[in-house]
Amino acid sequence: MRKVFVIGIGAGDPDHITVQAVKAMNRVDVFFVIDKGSTKDDLTGLRSELLSRHVEHGRYRVVEAADPERDRTAQAYREAVVDWQDRRAEIYEKMITDELGADQVGAFLVWGDPSLYDGTLRLLDRIAARGAVEFEVESIPGISSVQALAAAHRLILNRIGRPVLITTGRRIAAGLPDDVDDVVVMLDGGTAFADLPDTDVDIYWGAYVGTPDEVLVQGNLQEVKGEIARVRAEQRERKGWIMDTYLLRRRPQER
Amino acid sequence: MRKVFVIGIGAGDPDHITVQAVKAMNRVDVFFVIDKGSTKDDLTGLRSELLSRHVEHGRYRVVEAADPERDRTAQAYREAVVDWQDRRAEIYEKMITDELGADQVGAFLVWGDPSLYDGTLRLLDRIAARGAVEFEVESIPGISSVQALAAAHRLILNRIGRPVLITTGRRIAAGLPDDVDDVVVMLDGGTAFADLPDTDVDIYWGAYVGTPDEVLVQGNLQEVKGEIARVRAEQRERKGWIMDTYLLRRRPQER
Ligand SMILES: C[S@@+](CC[C@H](N)C(=O)[O-])C[C@H]1O[C@@H](n2cnc3c(N)ncnc32)[C@H](O)[C@@H]1O
Ligand SMILES: C[S@@+](CC[C@H](N)C(=O)[O-])C[C@H]1O[C@@H](n2cnc3c(N)ncnc32)[C@H](O)[C@@H]1O
Repeated sequence: MRKVFVIGIGAGDPDHITVQAVKAMNRVDVFFVIDKGSTKDDLTGLRSELLSRHVEHGRYRVVEAADPERDRTAQAYREAVVDWQDRRAEIYEKMITDELGADQVGAFLVWGDPSLYDGTLRLLDRIAARGAVEFEVESIPGISSVQALAAAHRLILNRIGRPVLITTGRRIAAGLPDDVDDVVVMLDGGTAFADLPDTDVDIYWGAYVGTPDEVLVQGNLQEVKGEIARVRAEQRERKGWIMDTYLLRRRPQER
Repeated sequence: MRKVFVIGIGAGDPDHITVQAVKAMNRVDVFFVIDKGSTKDDLTGLRSELLSRHVEHGRYRVVEAADPERDRTAQAYREAVVDWQDRRAEIYEKMITDELGADQVGAFLVWGDPSLYDGTLRLLDRIAARGAVEFEVESIPGISSVQALAAAHRLILNRIGRPVLITTGRRIAAGLPDDVDDVVVMLDGGTAFADLPDTDVDIYWGAYVGTPDEVLVQGNLQEVKGEIARVRAEQRERKGWIMDTYLLRRRPQER
């Protein structure tokens, strides 16, 4: 039976790769690559570096497919994503059927950890549900950008016995939740943090964390938000794209 | 200047170790070990396996200290933990001062990721704040039990554009939050999930994830909670201790 690995490769530092991921990579016949457009050069660079450093056999192939266009203007964000996922499923089903022999092993190398804001496992579920091709899926965890951010700032994400919320820029724009004091924000296309009125919140921000371009800023949100917005705009301009994540931490209250 | 690494070693599978962790381990003169009591054999086993597999030089030492007794009966959970942390800080300050030469490198190998429900970085902050010994801290991320659980069940933790909460058994006992549909529960000393009344929630449970003892159960919470409680009690009895984590996932509503 065909097998497909979904392998987390870490969030930018090639040394984030695990021994488990290296072992899995060494069993792979075909690496499937999802072309992400703008950030392509860095992702492709990391992938090739990992393959050439860690894969000992030379018999693997790399097969690339472009992601279908996504309707980013759509009001109904979730629906737009779902429709786009359908088009993706078709493309990748074809790729698996055409490129992977009946007993071969394929792999998707995914940024960070496959369990966090990554659609690859969902895509494979969708393809499996279509029923046209049978394959087994194995997920290999990787260091996520959340962990890379925490390590760079030497942070523990939770306070003692307290929760941590991982959420998106879109959601945080509506304000911080009342019942959680530690909130990690990913997928912020802009600077949602800058609109928050809270004066008792610290921010630990990082862009391109784990890569040679890593930039970190931390401090009281109101004091450093201007600096972060400025650095973010500069870096984005310079590289053409940005990947940033941050922790918003409310100062402890007497409870 | 003294340097202390806090190295995440993954949640049970020795192959979770990253290349970055292996490189750091190879720079270490003294490994500090926190004796955790009951779960000791497995933790110590994983640590020695990692050291003998990956550390190439033979000149490192392992220094062990027992954790101070913790008042588990205390009503004021947070205060009890804080006091206990103070006693720990003293013990470890002494260990660093006595055992680590002025230009040497020490390390704590921590379970999972140092940023998630682990007190080592906080302990080192506390020691640094006491001012008696100067050292630099570097945190190395590791695969957390949350990621190991997700991989074992082939899960993506978040739904599209939606948040994930990571919390404790103690907190979930009060009920699931309204505004988050995906909740990862750690540090549940009992079976807090079994008291939740929700009928629209699925549970993805795992114990000893990533180890040869791994046990997984998933299904509708009300249907499988009895089975999980039974398996959990059996396993705990058999090994003398248990480490389990689970995702509670509310079925999608029309919103
Ligand atoms: C589609 S998600 C993928 C997350 C990935 N699966 C992970 O585990 O990190 C992309 C988001 O991850 C975050 N991100 C990924 N890599 C990053 C890095 N090196 N530095 C900062 N943020 C990063 C950003 O918030 C970005 O918007
Ligand atoms: C003190 S916390 C340490 C967490 C660790 N820093 C991490 O990143 O996974 C201990 C909790 O982690 C979870 N845990 C750790 N290892 C586990 C494993 N192999 N399987 C299931 N749960 C685990 C359990 O919820 C346990 O109560």
